[in-house]
Amino acid sequence: MQKYFLSDEAFSTKIISGDDAFHIKNVMRCRINDEILVANNGESFLAKITNFIDKDVTFEIEKEIIGNHELPVFVSIFQGYPKGDKIEDIVKHGTELGAYEFIPTLMKRCVFKLDPKKKDSKLLRFNKIAKEAAEQSNRDIVPNVIDIKNLKEINFDYYNVKIVCYEEASKNGELVEFKKAIKSLKENDRVAIIVGPEGGIDDSEIKYLESKGFVAASLGKRILRTETVVFYCLSAIGYEMELK
Amino acid sequence: MQKYFLSDEAFSTKIISGDDAFHIKNVMRCRINDEILVANNGESFLAKITNFIDKDVTFEIEKEIIGNHELPVFVSIFQGYPKGDKIEDIVKHGTELGAYEFIPTLMKRCVFKLDPKKKDSKLLRFNKIAKEAAEQSNRDIVPNVIDIKNLKEINFDYYNVKIVCYEEASKNGELVEFKKAIKSLKENDRVAIIVGPEGGIDDSEIKYLESKGFVAASLGKRILRTETVVFYCLSAIGYEMELK
Repeated sequence: MQKYFLSDEAFSTKIISGDDAFHIKNVMRCRINDEILVANNGESFLAKITNFIDKDVTFEIEKEIIGNHELPVFVSIFQGYPKGDKIEDIVKHGTELGAYEFIPTLMKRCVFKLDPKKKDSKLLRFNKIAKEAAEQSNRDIVPNVIDIKNLKEINFDYYNVKIVCYEEASKNGELVEFKKAIKSLKENDRVAIIVGPEGGIDDSEIKYLESKGFVAASLGKRILRTETVVFYCLSAIGYEMELK
Repeated sequence: MQKYFLSDEAFSTKIISGDDAFHIKNVMRCRINDEILVANNGESFLAKITNFIDKDVTFEIEKEIIGNHELPVFVSIFQGYPKGDKIEDIVKHGTELGAYEFIPTLMKRCVFKLDPKKKDSKLLRFNKIAKEAAEQSNRDIVPNVIDIKNLKEINFDYYNVKIVCYEEASKNGELVEFKKAIKSLKENDRVAIIVGPEGGIDDSEIKYLESKGFVAASLGKRILRTETVVFYCLSAIGYEMELK
């Protein structure tokens, strides 16, 4: 059943408008009395459609759905800004895989040039992708995509587990650090994962991050593309912590 | 360093032609005496470029590179044929993550319509994507993308571990089977993983596959898109078996 994350206003007035109303009417082709899932403020409910008024949809709550669909840890993905629209795939699949938030990050080897005029519309688009992926994958929350930051402007004190994915580490046969970090995770840990852009992470950045408490870890014997690194990290965390 | 998988002919004559020669000259902008990696028949070598003759590149072998970049098991991905060009992403990222082969599979809920005229060119394209991804990710072999098959035409006797990824299982709170199967893997196991198309796997297909020795497994608490399922399975196998 399709889930819709509602604004506080839509949730309190029980009126869905805009894109979500369009989706309910024209994509899902719902009718009066059909059921949908609505979510607000981390809680999910089974709801029944009561009417279609102009372009809006009204509903009533039937019951709260108890069921946690979130990873037991908060994973923040600091993604070295990649080329093209790769970041859209990272947000889409990373949301399905349970990321808590995404922070597009400017690093030395980023070739991406930030056009200040387009920044706000890009951020809006990334957050829309996260909302749609969260609805499709039945998340309890929508991950935030946060404003682009420079690596060295970020305060990492908030995070208690810090991993930087480092391809060079794998060339030296390092195959221990990632699993050690993931196996040590405890519920509600705040995990920062840094993924370099296509060109990788500069040595000076690795040194800087190590000084901030990061562990440089390899993800196995093959060289992964930047987007694949994110899929791997989140899959491994889900596999380790969610499956029994 | 970029790797090139060479045909037996190119490897024995020490002459690279076609796309690979173009890539060496025009993308990597190599010069005489530059080093590249060449692979043939599962073995990798450090090689030195000796000349550029017309559109061809000649080389000599410097030394064999010993280093296993393969997963310790053979994972065959039976992918319910998805819409659009998703299968290209599955082959690309699945190759980086270590899949042994891909078998596009026709299942009940596939909306894909096979155009017999385009089949051969599609298969050629998928195999080219696998080769490029294998080179970029430093694999020792290039995974095969095998001709499209109907689910019930496939003989699964060859495989000794058989998993069908089943979203409905997660609704019943099943979180045990996948990890149990992966944790029991032994070196050189032949693993069949079946992933449904967008619409999922039909109940009758699940029953059929269970009768063939498959275990139906959920991949956690969220609903994953078909392509994300492949990334998750291969990442989890790499995490479990390759990291220490």
